[in-house]
Amino acid sequence: MKRILFLILLFLYCGLSYAQTTDNGILVMDEFMVPSKRQHIEIPGFDGFQALKCDFHMHTVFSDGNVWPAVRVGEAWVEGLDVIAIADHMEYVPHSDDVKVDFNRSYELVKSLAADRNIILVKAAEITRQTPPGHFNALFIQDASALLPGKAVPENDKEAVAKAVAQKAFIFWNHPGWKAESIKGSYDWIDFVDQLDKEKNLHGIEVFNGDNFYRKALDWAVDHNLTVMANTDVHGLTAMTYQLGDNSHRTMTLVFAKERSEAGVREALEAGRTVAWCGKYLAGKEAIMKNLFQACVNPGKPYQKKGTTRYFEISNQSDLYFELTRKVDNRTETILLYPRSSQLLTAKDGENSREYEVANAFVRGNQNLKVQFTLGD
Amino acid sequence: MKRILFLILLFLYCGLSYAQTTDNGILVMDEFMVPSKRQHIEIPGFDGFQALKCDFHMHTVFSDGNVWPAVRVGEAWVEGLDVIAIADHMEYVPHSDDVKVDFNRSYELVKSLAADRNIILVKAAEITRQTPPGHFNALFIQDASALLPGKAVPENDKEAVAKAVAQKAFIFWNHPGWKAESIKGSYDWIDFVDQLDKEKNLHGIEVFNGDNFYRKALDWAVDHNLTVMANTDVHGLTAMTYQLGDNSHRTMTLVFAKERSEAGVREALEAGRTVAWCGKYLAGKEAIMKNLFQACVNPGKPYQKKGTTRYFEISNQSDLYFELTRKVDNRTETILLYPRSSQLLTAKDGENSREYEVANAFVRGNQNLKVQFTLGD
Amino acid sequence: MKRILFLILLFLYCGLSYAQTTDNGILVMDEFMVPSKRQHIEIPGFDGFQALKCDFHMHTVFSDGNVWPAVRVGEAWVEGLDVIAIADHMEYVPHSDDVKVDFNRSYELVKSLAADRNIILVKAAEITRQTPPGHFNALFIQDASALLPGKAVPENDKEAVAKAVAQKAFIFWNHPGWKAESIKGSYDWIDFVDQLDKEKNLHGIEVFNGDNFYRKALDWAVDHNLTVMANTDVHGLTAMTYQLGDNSHRTMTLVFAKERSEAGVREALEAGRTVAWCGKYLAGKEAIMKNLFQACVNPGKPYQKKGTTRYFEISNQSDLYFELTRKVDNRTETILLYPRSSQLLTAKDGENSREYEVANAFVRGNQNLKVQFTLGD
Amino acid sequence: MKRILFLILLFLYCGLSYAQTTDNGILVMDEFMVPSKRQHIEIPGFDGFQALKCDFHMHTVFSDGNVWPAVRVGEAWVEGLDVIAIADHMEYVPHSDDVKVDFNRSYELVKSLAADRNIILVKAAEITRQTPPGHFNALFIQDASALLPGKAVPENDKEAVAKAVAQKAFIFWNHPGWKAESIKGSYDWIDFVDQLDKEKNLHGIEVFNGDNFYRKALDWAVDHNLTVMANTDVHGLTAMTYQLGDNSHRTMTLVFAKERSEAGVREALEAGRTVAWCGKYLAGKEAIMKNLFQACVNPGKPYQKKGTTRYFEISNQSDLYFELTRKVDNRTETILLYPRSSQLLTAKDGENSREYEVANAFVRGNQNLKVQFTLGD
Repeated sequence: MKRILFLILLFLYCGLSYAQTTDNGILVMDEFMVPSKRQHIEIPGFDGFQALKCDFHMHTVFSDGNVWPAVRVGEAWVEGLDVIAIADHMEYVPHSDDVKVDFNRSYELVKSLAADRNIILVKAAEITRQTPPGHFNALFIQDASALLPGKAVPENDKEAVAKAVAQKAFIFWNHPGWKAESIKGSYDWIDFVDQLDKEKNLHGIEVFNGDNFYRKALDWAVDHNLTVMANTDVHGLTAMTYQLGDNSHRTMTLVFAKERSEAGVREALEAGRTVAWCGKYLAGKEAIMKNLFQACVNPGKPYQKKGTTRYFEISNQSDLYFELTRKVDNRTETILLYPRSSQLLTAKDGENSREYEVANAFVRGNQNLKVQFTLGD
Repeated sequence: MKRILFLILLFLYCGLSYAQTTDNGILVMDEFMVPSKRQHIEIPGFDGFQALKCDFHMHTVFSDGNVWPAVRVGEAWVEGLDVIAIADHMEYVPHSDDVKVDFNRSYELVKSLAADRNIILVKAAEITRQTPPGHFNALFIQDASALLPGKAVPENDKEAVAKAVAQKAFIFWNHPGWKAESIKGSYDWIDFVDQLDKEKNLHGIEVFNGDNFYRKALDWAVDHNLTVMANTDVHGLTAMTYQLGDNSHRTMTLVFAKERSEAGVREALEAGRTVAWCGKYLAGKEAIMKNLFQACVNPGKPYQKKGTTRYFEISNQSDLYFELTRKVDNRTETILLYPRSSQLLTAKDGENSREYEVANAFVRGNQNLKVQFTLGD
Repeated sequence: MKRILFLILLFLYCGLSYAQTTDNGILVMDEFMVPSKRQHIEIPGFDGFQALKCDFHMHTVFSDGNVWPAVRVGEAWVEGLDVIAIADHMEYVPHSDDVKVDFNRSYELVKSLAADRNIILVKAAEITRQTPPGHFNALFIQDASALLPGKAVPENDKEAVAKAVAQKAFIFWNHPGWKAESIKGSYDWIDFVDQLDKEKNLHGIEVFNGDNFYRKALDWAVDHNLTVMANTDVHGLTAMTYQLGDNSHRTMTLVFAKERSEAGVREALEAGRTVAWCGKYLAGKEAIMKNLFQACVNPGKPYQKKGTTRYFEISNQSDLYFELTRKVDNRTETILLYPRSSQLLTAKDGENSREYEVANAFVRGNQNLKVQFTLGD
Repeated sequence: MKRILFLILLFLYCGLSYAQTTDNGILVMDEFMVPSKRQHIEIPGFDGFQALKCDFHMHTVFSDGNVWPAVRVGEAWVEGLDVIAIADHMEYVPHSDDVKVDFNRSYELVKSLAADRNIILVKAAEITRQTPPGHFNALFIQDASALLPGKAVPENDKEAVAKAVAQKAFIFWNHPGWKAESIKGSYDWIDFVDQLDKEKNLHGIEVFNGDNFYRKALDWAVDHNLTVMANTDVHGLTAMTYQLGDNSHRTMTLVFAKERSEAGVREALEAGRTVAWCGKYLAGKEAIMKNLFQACVNPGKPYQKKGTTRYFEISNQSDLYFELTRKVDNRTETILLYPRSSQLLTAKDGENSREYEVANAFVRGNQNLKVQFTLGD
């Protein structure tokens, strides 16, 4: 009730003339409505690269998704993404009784809306072959319809990808472990993929898809120098799939780009400057992961010395999590760096650097990132 | 980290055999995913009627909405609704370049899904005339396509509604104050509506639409004995529109029905046993509002006496808010009853009942519900 | 901004006379303040017993706690507890340079406040011996000061407990695994405890203390017929320790009592009618756990039949979690029943009951509750 | 359940050796516990000054507060404050039956703890005279006990403050409108204060105290060049008073200091470089408020041009709110800048700057901050 008083007084005193002061018989009760805003995601860049937050794999009613393409732009804006690609299935259009089949439509319908909202919209399609070999996303294409190789039969698999190659697409292998349990041998570095890779026609691989972590895919990315990708593959709504909030975000690819533009995204993808992010987990190539960690986490200078002990405040400036562990004597010491927060850390004089494993960050399927930082002065 | 230990031990000791214990190279990281569940909304019934939570006005890609019909069922299930009606516009189909125009499709596509999820799906359409007279929803129709009266020109307004009458629809006037500012005279008890009402062909009226409260509409509902309705009119996603949570819900109509069935819903709507709910606000006819209040709020028996003062715990068992106010001497006393919570209240011996106004509950456009309760023993 | 308009109009039209309409130069800005309310915790009773929510172990500045006793009452009121016991340490008073040592003061200071807030305050003390044997809480005592047996030296352990026995206290063993790692042999069914038990002077045992689950203690409770207890042992603030909210509560003992009174609590404790609750976990004796489960969870009647398949909505009416698992062929089926929510379940005709293990409910240290329910009609 | 699998696999594969792998019969269930971390509050500095987050007014059991002094340090650490002052009442010690009266103790007890946690602890006391003149805080004192002027009788008011002056304290007037309704004339620029001010012995004034905004005090601060202060005056727990979270914080004084040290705080307070912050509201002197706004909010460069329209993303990098309003034709345009988020804004070519009022920021009791920013290129 006090608030009402305040607001009345605010109105009377501040001389603001709010929308209307005459009564038209309509009251607006918006206490529990979601406010319209574009939430920032804090990820620092490094070495002159900025972090773009990207989701390169999502669906709409134009394939088997449940939303109109505009929803994908609206979600991206609200959640603070920089770049999205709608990648509707080429060969799977279950709504075709009701929705006209046109593989370019989801892009065309929202190209202008995305530009208005400062979202970079990458034209894409999902080449949807049977498993194996499974699905491949083609980014930066010109004409999605031209990708269709006649029929979704095995003998056309090669042709389907070739058509994307012909459009100079950036091609990555989606959810490589999908159906791993039902189709034996499908979650493997299969010949089809090996040949694509040897011909330089495979450029990236999904390490995270939704909440799935394909550990083998991370190994393949490292061993074959493929770009590490993380995407939602969302068919429904991100807000009903992910607990979106200040400390929780959709699965996404962090792309470290020279500039915030489609060309910048492409250059970075081709250079492999990405980190895959899913919940509190990170996966990627060691050098990039180390750079990202250094950009986010800083122990600063000691703020206190007591005897031979120096006190540090180790700070995480980003919206990422870092779970640092190291062996001390017989036990494991853990430092949990939550988004935008700090922890205390003490070090004896003479201990000028320290090494931790990052338990939630992977540089191979079964290997964690190792980091080292200076404990100065 | 301790949790990991716990979970490993749980696994080792409890003898549960979780999904798989062999490694297939795929890890699932679902800490930040939205769990799948149907959240209850606690609204007590009264007099043998149960409270059904209903939204009779929402859109899909089959008119100007942004979602496939299945999303409406999914949202309703998660949010704990009992009854929904997809009411796509008859005369406004902006997606018709891509989506086949068929006014029955949104119902047909999800009829079975709704039944599987224990959601009562009422067949409906929005008769979308220019304003005035504006839009009308027709519930319990047989064939939406048969409602179209040729063209959306003023001379057909009457015919459009007549076609719904012919299908014995329950017809209500949507958002009566929509465009009130731009179209003078539109937010009035217009002749068109008056005639419908006199012919017994207008049965309800939206008092809340989204977060708009049409105060005049509440007066008309009372004066013309129309059923009070509250609906979302959602075109996008409820989860991106409403702050959905334990204490906040979408705008909805509470229908007090003899049974949880389509017939039960219709009987209650025709009998006018509804309360309109929007955020923390309620609107409806006085007798029903009083019944609902009595079913939700109870001061119980005194738990302590000190001298001549008795102490009560006034309890709100529901997910509704009640903001009780009364004048005491020169000031206003307020009791805020949040969902599923209690407040303390003291009364002198001899004060055996008490009267409050419910500041967030309206029985007319400019009149609050008055309630009285016994302070026994 | 629309809200301001609304509130002004509300003020002008509804005739509510809010606190003051003249300006005194003070505005109250309480949007982000915590509202004052007593949140309900929904736990159904059974067999005529009601569920009382109790915490029998907490500290104040009168031993090594960090709060004035009134805070304990305020926390309990806000969180919806029925019963609390402040059990300050007898032999450990680190604030004694500043706070007068008086073991009865924490009770005396807030006895009246608790009564005013409808909280049952049980007089208690923590007999704080070295480990082993460790700490014991004595409930329902008359004079805490009279419990002190001279000195905290091992030879007085027996005497310390005897003084509580003399006051006819209900005595339970606290956190039996505390310091288990540093003091070998301490987390065992030690002779001291065995003798107490044989003399009928040990009545209960903490199975949960804070977020620790003492699995052996649950076995001892079952084998020696001790009352199962769960308490916070909070020294700081519950709000800074537990993520308090609609779906998360402090650790507590659910006491199934004939009446909501101190006598009712005592009778139920002596009869062993308790369930220990910590986060999403439950622990207790099998018969009581089954009763609680049956009171909370109900599959209802089938709402749909399709061919030979019946569809049920299994509903959890309580604020507890239940994680049901069962083996089906070679895999494990899981049903997660979150607080106040439902899940779908299908059963073939002829399957008239079903059995699950409750993965988050323990009836022994390494054994889960098994439940069975009817799938009728 | 999938998480369990993940965690087991994580354990098996990652080679992390978590705390213990042998079973000791104790499980830790911490899903719903509050994680220990120091949350950052993002407030940019300007002109080489950094923003220190300060609360100079809080109580403990050593006067009429309800917590041990250590709680104040713990709360400050968790909430991300830089500077606190415990200002226990000099003349009001209601716990004196139990707690020894010593006005220096709350400082002494936690001086070392604060230093360990990187919190600057300013020694302080609240000179607690009757109203009028009311209460005054003295910061940077040497000996609180020496401040007591004998008795709390009006004739000693002057002497009480003089003793703080003698210790070269920074002195500010607390909650100037407290009891404004019951004590007529107390919420005025009273002679006592006027004289203090003229003698240069009044240095600051609370504009916000808890959730109260003393509008007149802001005018006095501007007219008499007093430092603007905002403090909690918390007696209980901040976590039970404020909805603490990523977008909501306790009431605090933002101090713009040359360095993060006690000397830095004092220099800034004496120079008047502060902004008062309460919920979503800000109050302060115009020049500083403008600097703060410029440091937080930036429209950037246009990201798109369409015809003569340029599109900007106006971004708020801070944890503050800014509610921008301006008159456009006959209506009011509002831009709500939530913490760490952006909004869209369009401008025609040729419109190179724009002016808004900040509806939630006050530079006088009844006057909002006006801001201007460039819409370049």
